[in-house]
Amino acid sequence: MTEQVTEAEYRSRLMDGMAAAVAEKGYAETTIADIVRLARVSKRTFYQHFASKEECLLALYTAATDQLIEVIRRAIEGAHDMHSRVRCAHRAYLQRIKEHPLLMRTLFIEILAAGSRGLQVRRAANQRFADLLRATGADQQYDSPQKRHITPALAMAIVGGINELILQAMESNQIERLLEIEEPATALLEAVLARPIADD
Amino acid sequence: MTEQVTEAEYRSRLMDGMAAAVAEKGYAETTIADIVRLARVSKRTFYQHFASKEECLLALYTAATDQLIEVIRRAIEGAHDMHSRVRCAHRAYLQRIKEHPLLMRTLFIEILAAGSRGLQVRRAANQRFADLLRATGADQQYDSPQKRHITPALAMAIVGGINELILQAMESNQIERLLEIEEPATALLEAVLARPIADD
Repeated sequence: MTEQVTEAEYRSRLMDGMAAAVAEKGYAETTIADIVRLARVSKRTFYQHFASKEECLLALYTAATDQLIEVIRRAIEGAHDMHSRVRCAHRAYLQRIKEHPLLMRTLFIEILAAGSRGLQVRRAANQRFADLLRATGADQQYDSPQKRHITPALAMAIVGGINELILQAMESNQIERLLEIEEPATALLEAVLARPIADD
Repeated sequence: MTEQVTEAEYRSRLMDGMAAAVAEKGYAETTIADIVRLARVSKRTFYQHFASKEECLLALYTAATDQLIEVIRRAIEGAHDMHSRVRCAHRAYLQRIKEHPLLMRTLFIEILAAGSRGLQVRRAANQRFADLLRATGADQQYDSPQKRHITPALAMAIVGGINELILQAMESNQIERLLEIEEPATALLEAVLARPIADD
């Protein structure tokens, strides 16, 4: 029997090829030739799945978001109280960024240059992080009913705030300082979770 | 005596021309011909001050930040307690965005596509907003010494969080919903200002 490679597998291979190329030499230097070589497919196969390098970036962005959400979800499952959940989630997230600095730089920074479709996939990703945050915040309500529910807008503000700290470290090429973000990011989230209900 | 126009005035006129053109037709549609017509200067003068349309955008971005910082500083001066300061600052800021939606869209969104120099001016602007926030937070300490000082990282996270809410409204072309941001933005800031000092 010959090896059966489904279309979905080709697509996934191409995104892995893109990620490997970007991790190696950055997005700007990455060529479609690099991607197909690392993916062990033909250029023709590339163009059957993606119209351009940017299109492949957008797909990779979405796939990488899926993985990050999964990493965070698993980190949260292992922790029992809210405080350690927040810490575990941040650590898992930041550890992943530290492990793949060039790839993450692409996903955080270069996506901003990808026009309105770049903004669209970024917005969808932020929405998923905000939803995950709210789901976690909602659990918290059962522990201590006086704690306020996180509204969708507040959850998005927290996601934006943490992203800003990550961008700040990345823009200054201080990827090694990323773990320093844990403290302010945790403080931000915990301040919101602990805020009084008086002004509801 | 003939009219003396200094180089600084030409530069300022060109940025006003750029702002007017962008407010009228958006950044993508704006041409250098539009800018010089509205600025009442020659194309030659444009190129004496800016190498390109993008260069002029970067300068406008910085000038618009100066104005926004000034608007917010004045709004804060008129308010006496922290709560009304925060509200006045947000209202002044959001009002300005509502008055110049296309211009502000350019400054919030198109700057992201302006490569590393775009990120640089954006980072400098965010730093100024974060510094202003900290200066205001420091005043607060005198009112109630048990309130925690806002660290530089937390101030940047708040700026990023509020920006995210503005971006969300702008990306969905819901500029009319911008004033709805006031509540979550204020809640975010007040939660951080009011957080307990126990875990210092």
